[in-house]
Amino acid sequence: MNFCSDCGRPVTQVVPPDDNRLRHVCGHCGSIHYQNPKMVIGTVPVWDLDGDTQVLLCRRAIEPRRGYWTLPAGFMENAETTGEAAERETMEEAGARIELQELFTLLNVPHVHQVHLFYRARLLDLNFEAGTESLEVKLFAERDIPWHDIAFATVSKTLDFFFSDLAAHRAGQSFGFHTLDIRKRMQE
Amino acid sequence: MNFCSDCGRPVTQVVPPDDNRLRHVCGHCGSIHYQNPKMVIGTVPVWDLDGDTQVLLCRRAIEPRRGYWTLPAGFMENAETTGEAAERETMEEAGARIELQELFTLLNVPHVHQVHLFYRARLLDLNFEAGTESLEVKLFAERDIPWHDIAFATVSKTLDFFFSDLAAHRAGQSFGFHTLDIRKRMQE
Repeated sequence: MNFCSDCGRPVTQVVPPDDNRLRHVCGHCGSIHYQNPKMVIGTVPVWDLDGDTQVLLCRRAIEPRRGYWTLPAGFMENAETTGEAAERETMEEAGARIELQELFTLLNVPHVHQVHLFYRARLLDLNFEAGTESLEVKLFAERDIPWHDIAFATVSKTLDFFFSDLAAHRAGQSFGFHTLDIRKRMQE
Repeated sequence: MNFCSDCGRPVTQVVPPDDNRLRHVCGHCGSIHYQNPKMVIGTVPVWDLDGDTQVLLCRRAIEPRRGYWTLPAGFMENAETTGEAAERETMEEAGARIELQELFTLLNVPHVHQVHLFYRARLLDLNFEAGTESLEVKLFAERDIPWHDIAFATVSKTLDFFFSDLAAHRAGQSFGFHTLDIRKRMQE
């Protein structure tokens, strides 16, 4: 940030009164321009076929990590809820109609100023199709997940939690809610 | 937003290619300036005295809702995790040292473009004191909570969930994780 979005004059980094961090402050109008983490919201869309659970993944058509597989997810927009963001991103990236279930993971990625949330979801039909940001979308059983070609650590961790909870679920337990901090810089 | 923060020239609202929403776009350098929801993170700091559970509340010294009571909370900053934000805000607003426990509530407030998170927390000592944004900080048993003078709906809902779960906890159950969408415009 170089210029004030309110008046167009240059901003400088100073610590405002009653604050303890450097902020972008306008030397002309005094506006303080805070920068805050962004939320990335997605789903684990599931299809059950004769007791064999499959998860819908999207192969990314855009950078970063073009060509790698991800769960449908994207930046939360103003004026929507986390659940609405999850449904919208699943439709936009995978063309998939879902029944949204419980919030499943919250993963902090502080080095990129992001918090990722994933909901469990049930696919309502098999009429999914790649959106403009996906090369292809496809169902995977656990044994077929392309673990080495997953785009982001938050996605592979969420899939780990999911299949672990799925095994527990088959033994009579409930799906949980999982939080994790991912501090190591990976390719994201 | 009236001006581009990259080059200082005027922005206009247009729908960019491959997008479906109005964005602030610079007519000069082409930068797209996205606006996204902000996260507000806080705690439910608890002190147990002979089996009588008390919760630490702060009376706000700043607008909005100056003079009303709140749980310690504030905007998450870049480069921190949700847990770090919770501990920092609890120290800044209430001067309170805590042991952070589980994430307890996630509340969407879409009309103000915010998502609020509250963690359960255990006060480590009674040496709390009002920070610059609080008029006073005080422990309240459930029967003494100033329900009519709570600053925000996300705080009163979180306190509702907390005392409900506390009763269940005394009956042998676990504390849960709760999500809620607050769509009605209240005084926040």
